[in-house]
Parts: sequence; C-alpha cells; structure tokens
Amino acid sequence: MAKIKPSLPQGTRDFGPAVMRKRNYIMQTIREAFQLFGFQPLETPAMEQLDTLTGKYGDEGDQLMFKILNNGESLNKAAAPLAASIQENIPLVRSVRLFAEKALRYDLTIPFARFVSMNQHELAMPFKRYQMQPVWRADRPQKGRYREFYQCDADVVGSDSLLNEIELLLIYDTVFNKLGLQGYELRVNNRKILSGLAELTGRPDLLTDITVAIDKLDKIGMDKVKEELQQRGLGEKEISVIENFLLISGSNDEKLTRLSELLATSPTGMKGIEEISFVLNSGLAQFKATPILDVTLARGLNYYTGMIVEVKAPATVSIGSIGGGGRYDDLTGLFGLPGISGVGISFGVDRIYDVLEQLELFPEAAQQSTKVMFLNLGDASVKVAFPLVMQLRGKGIAAELYHEAAKMDKQMKYADRRAIPYIVILGESELAENKMSIKHLTNREQKTITIAELDGFLFE
Amino acid sequence: MAKIKPSLPQGTRDFGPAVMRKRNYIMQTIREAFQLFGFQPLETPAMEQLDTLTGKYGDEGDQLMFKILNNGESLNKAAAPLAASIQENIPLVRSVRLFAEKALRYDLTIPFARFVSMNQHELAMPFKRYQMQPVWRADRPQKGRYREFYQCDADVVGSDSLLNEIELLLIYDTVFNKLGLQGYELRVNNRKILSGLAELTGRPDLLTDITVAIDKLDKIGMDKVKEELQQRGLGEKEISVIENFLLISGSNDEKLTRLSELLATSPTGMKGIEEISFVLNSGLAQFKATPILDVTLARGLNYYTGMIVEVKAPATVSIGSIGGGGRYDDLTGLFGLPGISGVGISFGVDRIYDVLEQLELFPEAAQQSTKVMFLNLGDASVKVAFPLVMQLRGKGIAAELYHEAAKMDKQMKYADRRAIPYIVILGESELAENKMSIKHLTNREQKTITIAELDGFLFE
Repeated sequence: MAKIKPSLPQGTRDFGPAVMRKRNYIMQTIREAFQLFGFQPLETPAMEQLDTLTGKYGDEGDQLMFKILNNGESLNKAAAPLAASIQENIPLVRSVRLFAEKALRYDLTIPFARFVSMNQHELAMPFKRYQMQPVWRADRPQKGRYREFYQCDADVVGSDSLLNEIELLLIYDTVFNKLGLQGYELRVNNRKILSGLAELTGRPDLLTDITVAIDKLDKIGMDKVKEELQQRGLGEKEISVIENFLLISGSNDEKLTRLSELLATSPTGMKGIEEISFVLNSGLAQFKATPILDVTLARGLNYYTGMIVEVKAPATVSIGSIGGGGRYDDLTGLFGLPGISGVGISFGVDRIYDVLEQLELFPEAAQQSTKVMFLNLGDASVKVAFPLVMQLRGKGIAAELYHEAAKMDKQMKYADRRAIPYIVILGESELAENKMSIKHLTNREQKTITIAELDGFLFE
Repeated sequence: MAKIKPSLPQGTRDFGPAVMRKRNYIMQTIREAFQLFGFQPLETPAMEQLDTLTGKYGDEGDQLMFKILNNGESLNKAAAPLAASIQENIPLVRSVRLFAEKALRYDLTIPFARFVSMNQHELAMPFKRYQMQPVWRADRPQKGRYREFYQCDADVVGSDSLLNEIELLLIYDTVFNKLGLQGYELRVNNRKILSGLAELTGRPDLLTDITVAIDKLDKIGMDKVKEELQQRGLGEKEISVIENFLLISGSNDEKLTRLSELLATSPTGMKGIEEISFVLNSGLAQFKATPILDVTLARGLNYYTGMIVEVKAPATVSIGSIGGGGRYDDLTGLFGLPGISGVGISFGVDRIYDVLEQLELFPEAAQQSTKVMFLNLGDASVKVAFPLVMQLRGKGIAAELYHEAAKMDKQMKYADRRAIPYIVILGESELAENKMSIKHLTNREQKTITIAELDGFLFE
C-alpha cells in the first residue's frame, strides 16, 4: 500500500514524555488529594449510547458531540432509510440516528449520572466519586481549546450537608498548595443569592438572563453587562438594582452584612446568605487561601442551585479560571432517579499545566525520567554493570545501561538529550580496582567509589 | 424530555470503585516497572485519521474499527455522493470514507509508529516508550472480550541490541513478582528458528501457513495441527519434519543442542538459535522465573522477526496468556520512515485482573479506600473532629468525617459498606476528657487515647 504522510486529527494532541511527566505530576497530585478526602475512583466507557447523551447539553452540545458509526450489517441496513431521508432533503446531521447509535462522552457528569442511576442499589450514599478521563467535543480548535481533553471531577451525591462544600474547597486548597501555586483565588457565591437579586429586581422570571449577563462581567465590563441586561428585557431601575448589587465590596463579612440588608425580604436570598456564611465562617477549616465571597460570580451552567465556586489563577498569569463547580439539586432525574442532589468540583488540567509552566513551578522530579545511566564499555563492563543496574532498580531508582558499546561521545549525548543526571563509568581501570566512577552531568562533579559502596550512594 | 432507562453500549464496562482500585494497583505496578527500566510515557489521541489506521490490521481490522462520523457541514456535504453510492448498491460499510474521516485507535502500536515518524528528529534514539491507554474494537462481545479495553505496552525502537530483549523479559519478571504471582511462565522462541524450520521442510514460501498452524497447537492439539498443515498445502514428509520439531523437549540447553543439529543447514535458523541462546544464557540477568524456550510458540502476528515471548498464567488458573510481544524489523516504513526496528511487550490487564482475583492475590491496600472515619456526633464533636481529620490527611492518611449527625447505627453501616477499617468516636464523655475512642471494625478492638496522641497513632 502507498506510504502516507501521517498527521493528527484537528484539535488533538500527542503527549510526548516530557509533557506526560508534567501532566502525570498534576494528575497524581489531584488524585492523591481526592483519595485523602475519601473520594473513590470511577471510570466509565469512552462511548455512551446516543440516547444517554442527546439533549443533555443543549443544541450546541448535540451538534458538537462525536458520533460513532454503526458497524457491519447494522450500518448497511441504514442504506434504504438514508436514501429516503436524503431524497426528502433532510440534512445528514439530522438523520444521524439512522447510522449512529453511540457517541463519545462529552463530559464526565452525565456518564456519572447514568452510573449512579444504574447502580443506585449497590452504592453506599453519600457516594463520593472522582473521575479523571478525557472527553471529546467537536469545537472549532483554537489556542487552548482542544477536541480531546481531560476532565478531573470530584462529586458528592446524596447529601445536602454543607460540610461537603467546605471539603471540596479544601481539596482545591490542598491541591494548589501542593503544586506550589501562590496567589490563586477561591471565589465563591451562592445561586440562591442571585435568585434573591432577581426577586429584588421584581423579575424572578429573568433569573437565567441576569445570570448569563453577570457571568460576563469579568470579560466585558460593567457597561456592556448593563447593555446586555437591557437587551434581555430589564428596565433602567432594575438594572440599577443589579449594578448596586454587583458593586458590593469589602471583606467577606462586610459583603455578607450588606447582602443581608439588601436581600432581607427574599427568603431564598437569605437562605443563600446563610449557606455561604456557614461555608466561610464555620471555623472548621483552615484555608491557606481564604475563599473570597464574590457576588459577581455567576457561572453559566443552569443546573447549579447552591454554592458555586471558581478558582482563579494568580493575576500574574493571564489565564483566568483553573477550576470550578457548585451544588446542584437533581443529578439523575432524567434517568428516572429523582431526588439525588450533590456538589462537585472540576480541575482544568490543561490550564493548570500552562500556569505551572509559566511560573516555572514544575519540580525537578516531574522533569526527570531515568536517574542513572551506566555507560556500555563492552562485554567485561556490561557483565559487571548489568547486575548493578538491576540492584538500583530494586531500590526504586530508575536506571539504564546503554544498549550497545557505542562511542563514549554518542552515549554521553544520549544521556544529555534524555536529561539523565548521573552517569556511571566502569572502564578497564575502574574494573581492575573493583571501583566505579559516578559523574553528575549538570554540576560536572565526579566521584569514584567501590562497587560495594553503590548500595549506599545517594543519588539526589 | 422523556425519561430514559439508561444502559451501556454493548461490550463496554463501568469500573466502579472496588474494581478501579484493583485495576489501578495492577497498572501502577506495571507503570513503576516501566519507569524503573527507563521507559518513558507517551499518550496519543483516542482518534486517529482513518488513513493512519486503514490497512494496518487486515480486512478484519478495517471492519472492526470504530469510525467517527464527520460533524456539521462536512457531514451534510456527503449527502449527494452518498445518495449516488446507495443508488449504485454499494454497501454503506464500503462508502464509509464519504462521511467518516477519523476512527478510534485499534491498538497502541500504529499510533506509536505514527508518533515516531512524525517526531523522528526530536526523539533521542533508541526511544523507549510505554503507553497505557484504552483501545476499541467492534468484536462480538463475549466472556473476557470487550469492545473497550486497556493495552499496556512497552517498546524500544531504534536498537538491534539483544540487551533490550533481556530487559523486557526482566520487566515481566519484575512485574509478576511484585504482583505476588507464582508459577507463571515466560515462554520464548525466535521467529528465525521458525523460518529455519520452513526452510527445512523445503517450503520457505509457506512460513506464514506453518506459523499460523503451529500457533494453534495449545488449543487444538497435534493431530488437528497436522490436519491444518495438510490443508495448507504441506505434504506428509514435510509435516513429519514439523512434528519432529514440535516434539523437541528437555531443558533449554537440550533443546538448543537439538535445534542446532536440526537447523545446521539454515543460516537463518542458526541465527535465531544464536540470538535466543544469548537471551537465555548471557548470565547477565537473574530471573525469578527462568524463561523457557518453547519451540512451539509461534504468535500469530506477521510482523515479528526475532525473539517472540508469551507469558502464561499459572496452570492452576485456566486463563492462558497474560502478556506477549516480540521483535519486529520495520515499525514505521508505512509512514515513510524505513529502518526503524524494535522490540516490545504487552500486558493483558483484564486477564491479569482475573488471575489475581482467582488466586486472591490483591493486597489489602488495593481493596481499601478511606482508612479512618470520624463519627458525626453533632456540632461540638464536629468542631473537634474536623481539624483532626485534616491532620490525618496532612499525614497521608485518607480520612473522612460523616457528613451529618445521623443515627450512630446509620453511620456505622456506611463505614461498613465502604470497608473503612477505623472509626473514631468523639462523644460527650470523650470530649470532656480530651480523648477519643478508636474502634477497629474488623477485629472489634477499641482503644481510648488522648487527642494529642492521635498524631502518633498507628493506623495499620
């Protein structure tokens, strides 16, 4: 067959060793925190039934979902109905069900909901699960937006306790501290406060419009938000109520006091204030970065009903949100299991990667693979070296023997390209004295030790 | 929208917490070994261009590949040509290219080959990579065969050194020993020996037929193999040469001696013997389970050219092969990069899981999530408990506080279902004395310690 010049599908990426090690470092840090907090691992299949996913992400989601073609006879059978459908001028995107029964998952939440409703009787509630898997979206690729990307989610379902909110904020705090990130912000709000605001304007029916507009404040500024509110049907007086609300400032306590005055007549609003006060002031948890009450935080997704949270990267990197989540009332209603509420958070791995890269926060260990390479100086040297390589591996030190007795130069160059810090030399003179030379490639230090001393040698 | 009863696509699985922990334990053990031996991580996208995959796995592979439907306008554009193609009675499976440009990866080898040829100038050769990702095949689902399953591969490319063969066998040895498996067998052979055999029969042109037939010996027995050889065009005398070869027995050395006599006239066969002798008798490596020369080992895949290996599960579990691999001459020729040879191995995670399960070899740690749960006995108790939970987490101990002040009975039942071994009780009497009770749920022991003593308490 003809040779082809290989390429990657648009919007997808290979992760080579250097990138993989850094990504693994981030994911492992998140995974460990999830586990320390009692969250349990779940993995669901890449494919879901089309029915499971359709209609869950709006029209756009249905469009951007990657559908999987039926195989074999099941595909062939579609020929007749498909021909008929084309005859009637129905666009192919609308007759997908004729030849595709499955699609790639679009997020981790719907598969999680499906799992919970299928396994409700086996699960100990509350069910605390974490899930770290890729999702696929046929978005137009652009800088920082890919068609395959990992989501890292933790959710507690089956519990209304606000302790869960505090725990999830603490997971953020734990992870970003472990990653050495300073100056990030945990911004929280409560959807019920926004409901109270909508009531205050006299337009509770426009809650979604108000939320959507407020959500853009960061990006487009106050004037444009006001314009948008107007376009969405709010009057001057109503907009000024919203503006006053958005301008609330000060410490968390000052904001809470001001909110209590403003929303005194709204039971929903007051409930939101009570909830967020507990989260901020329970005194149970010690945060390294105290969560900030941000009344302008709205988050687009419609299904949030309680606390919402967003993590902002340090201001020095202009990357924006690196995580977010919130409480929802009904996870599994659409799958026939009502009354399952929950709260969840998500980490944006790609953006966290960019932040750590920009701030040079990846530790040495996340940038190293093999620690020690033994030069291959011919059969006599190999005979001594090989068991020593195995000895180091047995102690958990990644070690290699160069694969052939190439020129020293070539072997050193390989070690250099692989960023291997230590080289061990077992040349004729070393062998004669039962010794070896250990060379540190970056600081250029060289030591000679006896072979027996290798076991105690500190490869730092 | 209507509620739907959710289901999973045929042949796919959810991995709930208990299974995930055990799978993670297996994968982590394999990953650590790969890293200790200097292999580097790689991940490629789930989707590849259809052109990258087509024609690489035979007709069957092309059929069983999951293709991904084009999106949006690119799909709609297919309407006219598709209508024409249906008109001409071309089956839809044969006009897939009209509406699908991508497919899910079918194995990890072709994506690896694509990666190597696309990045040849950046890679330090030899390139040692490992890759642990799911692959997808539209096989008819049956016991132990799934449509989504993980492959765990390690390959060295760009080196002909037989040291690589020894290293890869040692990885098997290391992993299966870490997993506590006894009685597994590392069976090796060399494709050049089989070539020698084909020469010996006088039918080198039938090498593939001979290999395919021999490969079935385990399953169908000698008589059926002989039948199949006959069907494949070999005469009685030729078959008896093959039978004599297959009956070679004894120790590795005895087999090697016998082979050397048999294949003395075949330079290729003798080369194979030389290679496998080095792997078995170099004296460099100490195996916990000495590799066994198995002249009947053939392995189906056509592209092997040197050593081949298969790992057999212990005879007490009737599961067969739990890993395999071999040396190949040309990884990337089809992608326009000739001369890249390599050798690789693969672990069968699903089967290893079944073996460990059957032999009850999963350690306690792979079956536990949270180690300590603090009972929730109301606000006063929570105020003391919460910081202590955080203290344990800070020390790397997975700990939880029950989410609400439910009845003790309910909380204990939850801990039991979650298999949490330790319960901490901070009741009124404990609080009054600055103490806590720690109860071990399986051995029923209970201890009372002061709060200050928690830091030193050993949760085993």
